[in-house]
Amino acid sequence: MSKQVGMSSTQLTKPIYIREWASAVGKKEGEGPLGQLFDFVGGDDLLGNKTWEEAESAFQKKAVSLLFEKDNEAYNRVRFILAGDLLGQEIASSFGLKDFRFPMFGLYGACSTCGESLSLGSMLVDGGFAEQVVCVTSSHFASAEKEFRYPLDYGSQRPPCSTWTVTGSGAYLLSREKHENRAQTPKDCGKNNPGDCAMESIASDLPRKCVIERKYEVAITAVTTGKIIDYGIKDSMNMGACMAPAACDTIYRHLKDFEREPEYYDKIITGDLGTVGQTVLLDLLKQKGFDISERHMDCGIEIFNSEEQGTNAGGSGCGCAASVLAAYLLPRLASGEWKRILFLPTGALLSKVSFNEGKSIPGIAHAVVIERM
Amino acid sequence: MSKQVGMSSTQLTKPIYIREWASAVGKKEGEGPLGQLFDFVGGDDLLGNKTWEEAESAFQKKAVSLLFEKDNEAYNRVRFILAGDLLGQEIASSFGLKDFRFPMFGLYGACSTCGESLSLGSMLVDGGFAEQVVCVTSSHFASAEKEFRYPLDYGSQRPPCSTWTVTGSGAYLLSREKHENRAQTPKDCGKNNPGDCAMESIASDLPRKCVIERKYEVAITAVTTGKIIDYGIKDSMNMGACMAPAACDTIYRHLKDFEREPEYYDKIITGDLGTVGQTVLLDLLKQKGFDISERHMDCGIEIFNSEEQGTNAGGSGCGCAASVLAAYLLPRLASGEWKRILFLPTGALLSKVSFNEGKSIPGIAHAVVIERM
Repeated sequence: MSKQVGMSSTQLTKPIYIREWASAVGKKEGEGPLGQLFDFVGGDDLLGNKTWEEAESAFQKKAVSLLFEKDNEAYNRVRFILAGDLLGQEIASSFGLKDFRFPMFGLYGACSTCGESLSLGSMLVDGGFAEQVVCVTSSHFASAEKEFRYPLDYGSQRPPCSTWTVTGSGAYLLSREKHENRAQTPKDCGKNNPGDCAMESIASDLPRKCVIERKYEVAITAVTTGKIIDYGIKDSMNMGACMAPAACDTIYRHLKDFEREPEYYDKIITGDLGTVGQTVLLDLLKQKGFDISERHMDCGIEIFNSEEQGTNAGGSGCGCAASVLAAYLLPRLASGEWKRILFLPTGALLSKVSFNEGKSIPGIAHAVVIERM
Repeated sequence: MSKQVGMSSTQLTKPIYIREWASAVGKKEGEGPLGQLFDFVGGDDLLGNKTWEEAESAFQKKAVSLLFEKDNEAYNRVRFILAGDLLGQEIASSFGLKDFRFPMFGLYGACSTCGESLSLGSMLVDGGFAEQVVCVTSSHFASAEKEFRYPLDYGSQRPPCSTWTVTGSGAYLLSREKHENRAQTPKDCGKNNPGDCAMESIASDLPRKCVIERKYEVAITAVTTGKIIDYGIKDSMNMGACMAPAACDTIYRHLKDFEREPEYYDKIITGDLGTVGQTVLLDLLKQKGFDISERHMDCGIEIFNSEEQGTNAGGSGCGCAASVLAAYLLPRLASGEWKRILFLPTGALLSKVSFNEGKSIPGIAHAVVIERM
């Protein structure tokens, strides 16, 4: 039986392996510092579709398909798919995943949905409800701008605190059992020694689809579930500030529930606070007695070179944390560079209706502990 | 350890009690055939708020508050809240529930979300991840029309196959333990004998807040998880037809997974197919060899008197199945009239964007087995 820890955390009975992972992103993401690390980079952001929404579905479908390419026995073992996106009524997931014909749980936690899906997915596997599940989330710059702000054609001004919604998707195969016979040979890799790929050369010339040598398996071992936190901020161009209090709340509760110090983790990694949200988070946590400045990392800051790419405070969206986790974070655990991380995608709970009606923008952040095994 | 049954069903290890339930609905629902059975009926559909969205949040908040009025020890025992609604980015749930400060999992399955929340909620409790969880969903006629179709002020024509989104919310307290010391005395009930309240007199003059005598506890014992089923229907004014194939798929898989005949259940109850969807469902299931015509019931057909109330094919929405389950179905199990039901809220996976872009409207239906204990 799993252990309920404190008021809102869960220690899983046994490690739930992230058996495979995959990422599919758009052109701009492919040109960023992590570009060489994604499994798939689109030539344009429509992927041959007519609408941005169809394109987002296609990225999600691609990420899940890549999972099954990497583990071709998985398709028959997956029992549930847990998925979500940012669009109204989650149409990117509905249309992206319907052809897979898995029993599906649709989730919504704004940009924190990746964390929510890994939380619920790992609990379903740990509880014996499934041998394997797929977790997947996505976002798309153009469909998100249309959904939340202005049509792209307006060319509206973006303030420095704004973030750039990532076009992309990340998918994960969670499993009770580790992969016993994983192929370790790098494919299409120009380097002779697989060790050279072990993630020290981020943003270098690693060829795409390079398989990082996995010295370790990677697993989710604990979960801290997010609460809706509302500091009354109403600026939809400053999502980092809207979400930082929720990130602070989840990290604080996590550390208190488990009676841990930040040093327990190699990194504490938020989803898409960006540079402005990062400052707010670090300040808020300091007020509560925790200094995580040395080990905080934010997927939104990592994915773009903001100065060169004009993404202001960084990347954001359901696909930001999801694609960075798959392309950049999990390989660093698998290669042995890190031992364990606290990973918490962050979500801003607004719609254009609530925004136009003058409501605040509450946040939520769902955390999972991911460790090398 | 719970038992995985067939490809997509789950037999829970032990019954997960629906310890308490509550419903809060709008004026029109209160004037319908089930009007006297709801815990709370609003005097108007704004409940003192400025916007329809705020009003929907207020109904959801009211339903959850009623749960805690009924079981005032529950507030400190609830570990998670699983919630969802129909609005873009689920703002009814975010703003309705934030003040409760529970760790929250946001769910989206369109009008099937009530079934999704009961599925995941009962699995989380069964797996030992929580002692108690709250499941809640809502919808609102006016916020839904604005979200999916036309502003109310247009006075647009409604074809006979259209359904009327229910204004209301249903909330449930799921628990590992049954309620040992439940008060059985009817409150505000004009009848002297509690047995008179035992649901034979639906739509009679039962006073509001009448407490039905609970001869039995009620529990969820099994789950069959929905798949996205798309028959290519594109008419957002005929949601029943869009959802019926998904209902058929889930019922069929459920019966096959458990090797049961429809007669195993007193009733097989869909969420909001309405009269048109009901016909489609019965026909489709007959083609697959199952005749459920004698035991099929639909919450959307029950909640309104369509001829008098002008609701055409019936009621619909996340709040339809949720409020009818709380007000009408669970009491019939608790009173002993029924032994077990298969309850499957049905959802149509569309947004106004997908509709306007000419996409089809896939459906999904999440089933739970609910039994008296």
